Amino acid sequence: MTSSLDPTLQTIGKNLRRIRVASGRSQEGLALDAAIDRTYVSQIERGIANPSILVLKKIASCLDANVSDLVVGT
Amino acid sequence: MTSSLDPTLQTIGKNLRRIRVASGRSQEGLALDAAIDRTYVSQIERGIANPSILVLKKIASCLDANVSDLVVGT
Repeated sequence: MTSSLDPTLQTIGKNLRRIRVASGRSQEGLALDAAIDRTYVSQIERGIANPSILVLKKIASCLDANVSDLVVGT
Repeated sequence: MTSSLDPTLQTIGKNLRRIRVASGRSQEGLALDAAIDRTYVSQIERGIANPSILVLKKIASCLDANVSDLVVGT
């Protein structure tokens, strides 16, 4: 986990939250579909996790989005 | 390292190679600046590594680019 808040990770977290909420999904529902821990979804959304591309790809595909959608604005 | 080739990782690898070559940098020079191993730069460019966002951010900043530039088209 990242100690200080990184602006790139924060932007990705905001993108994820926006797309997830727009899709009507809960963190639990998304985590279940993406087969990752709910707390990890929360950490990514809060910008305190440093996800790999393949984790972002799994999350994006569950939201019918692309990795580039999650990284927009970085 | 990823066993089968993932299209998202391959796209990121092509983006990195294109941006790096356009900047006139060698893999060695970029690896030195980004403080990562040259073989890792090569693995990312070949689409066989699964980099984290912060690794991509370090590489992108050395190339005066953004993470979103490296992830375009995914």
